[in-house]
Amino acid sequence: MRDVCVVGLGLIGGSVLRAAVAAGRVAWGATASVQDAEAARADGFDVLDLGAALSLARERDALVVVAVPLPAVEEVLRRVPAGVRLTDVVSVKGPVAEVVARVAPGARYVGGHPMAGTAESGWAAGRADLFHDAAWVVTAEDGTDLDVLTDVVGLALDARAHVVPATAAEHDAAVARISHLPHVLAAVLASVGADGGPLALALAAGSFGDGTRVAGSRPEGVRAMCEGNRAALLDAVDDALGRLGAARGSLASTGGLAKTIDAGHRARVALQEVRHADRADVTIDLTSPEALAALRALGSRGGRVVGLTGSTVLARTS
Amino acid sequence: MRDVCVVGLGLIGGSVLRAAVAAGRVAWGATASVQDAEAARADGFDVLDLGAALSLARERDALVVVAVPLPAVEEVLRRVPAGVRLTDVVSVKGPVAEVVARVAPGARYVGGHPMAGTAESGWAAGRADLFHDAAWVVTAEDGTDLDVLTDVVGLALDARAHVVPATAAEHDAAVARISHLPHVLAAVLASVGADGGPLALALAAGSFGDGTRVAGSRPEGVRAMCEGNRAALLDAVDDALGRLGAARGSLASTGGLAKTIDAGHRARVALQEVRHADRADVTIDLTSPEALAALRALGSRGGRVVGLTGSTVLARTS
Repeated sequence: MRDVCVVGLGLIGGSVLRAAVAAGRVAWGATASVQDAEAARADGFDVLDLGAALSLARERDALVVVAVPLPAVEEVLRRVPAGVRLTDVVSVKGPVAEVVARVAPGARYVGGHPMAGTAESGWAAGRADLFHDAAWVVTAEDGTDLDVLTDVVGLALDARAHVVPATAAEHDAAVARISHLPHVLAAVLASVGADGGPLALALAAGSFGDGTRVAGSRPEGVRAMCEGNRAALLDAVDDALGRLGAARGSLASTGGLAKTIDAGHRARVALQEVRHADRADVTIDLTSPEALAALRALGSRGGRVVGLTGSTVLARTS
Repeated sequence: MRDVCVVGLGLIGGSVLRAAVAAGRVAWGATASVQDAEAARADGFDVLDLGAALSLARERDALVVVAVPLPAVEEVLRRVPAGVRLTDVVSVKGPVAEVVARVAPGARYVGGHPMAGTAESGWAAGRADLFHDAAWVVTAEDGTDLDVLTDVVGLALDARAHVVPATAAEHDAAVARISHLPHVLAAVLASVGADGGPLALALAAGSFGDGTRVAGSRPEGVRAMCEGNRAALLDAVDDALGRLGAARGSLASTGGLAKTIDAGHRARVALQEVRHADRADVTIDLTSPEALAALRALGSRGGRVVGLTGSTVLARTS
């Protein structure tokens, strides 16, 4: 099992380090946060300074996992040695790939995004089991290094996540719709409710509580996540504006909301079906020239990688 | 305790009948649904035909509770004897008040809306405890019959709900924001997510699941509820469109979402504060000429009625 060097020991990075060690790997971390470093050391983990951590990673041919917020990625990447195996856990993939291409073009980079945990932060909030049953997106572009992709898949599976392959652009478009737009709509709904005054809030029950829940998340984290995916989020917001405007027009002109409500119901049913679909097992040979296309096709159909033996992944399609 | 005659024995009406009987009242029902009538009789409840049920109500000076869907209200009201004590449990209040004024002007009507249960329907889905800890809006207009209002408050408290007084217009504006708009936004969000294809749905997690949950409700019920509150819902949708458009503009022009996300967070915090506020106890004498104004002021401050002794209500303000 490949060694792992985690840079950034907040909620996600701290959980990756714990999960790697729990899976029996040699793993160490680095962080600019004195508090997180002390807490991780107190819990028995190896924490080095960044230079020493990256040197050790080159020496042992380890996988480096960048787990710092997007604005801090560039500074870390400037220090990554050429030829190092590199991944990240940032919630947008296009902007990270752009920074890698610009400041660390010699790194063997494969993007990653484990989709778990946003409400809390810091080493103390991390857990070895944070990624159990979560989706961990791994980017599969034309020309992606399949050897490093195999490393990232292996780490994700060790953390008991399942792997969803996608291009960076596909990932960013998808998470804009199912993660970032929900935060924007929750904020809008919460504000419209509060505009109704104490009476409205006193009457709020299940639908308002569900629809505004993520508006309770730390605003700085939500803003960083949404603003970091600006282009894709604009597309998703425009889609929502178009659909909400159409609902408004229909309600005003005919009094009816059939198209809006029925389409939403079908979409929610489709969500449940993707979640509970019977899945067929397939295998993909990561040494094949068709591997990257096969991985992307799997992801775009809603499939996922659930196992790895040597260089063959076991996948399930919906 | 006043007798209760419930017309319509679906989820809400069936639960009102059960709750009234559980509280020790004499209560009976009527329904146009053969299936609900048979099920209610099999469970040991008295179900009469509509004419007999209303005659008995007049004879015993009972409170008649209209618990049929909005489109069926007018047909029931045409058969309500003059002078009868009348309330309803329909999810909009302005349109019902309009029908009452038009076809049953001799009834002693006070509107009601117990805010519980929408996902299932029919007698079988009802429960005596459906309204425990729920808000039950009771309309308090200038000129409202305080004797009948006292009856409705008593029934709501017997069902272990708390009573929120409001005018019909205040009610309709508030529920548009905290109940009907959430259904429209959930439908829009579900559709935008599904527009992202199987990959997006496969990546959907907490925020999308929460934000689309009510899109899984029976579409016919959601449409009837939202379309029945057309005017107030249009105002709420316009507010949402304005806020979402502002978010779009800010993201496009500056890349920032601070105003949207921060306002949403403050609103969500305000919701939690309304829910958990320390409340001061006050009493309102329902025989006072100031009673209706005091009730409305209570509701508009987010307060609620939690007890009734004779003609004095015990209320809590936030």
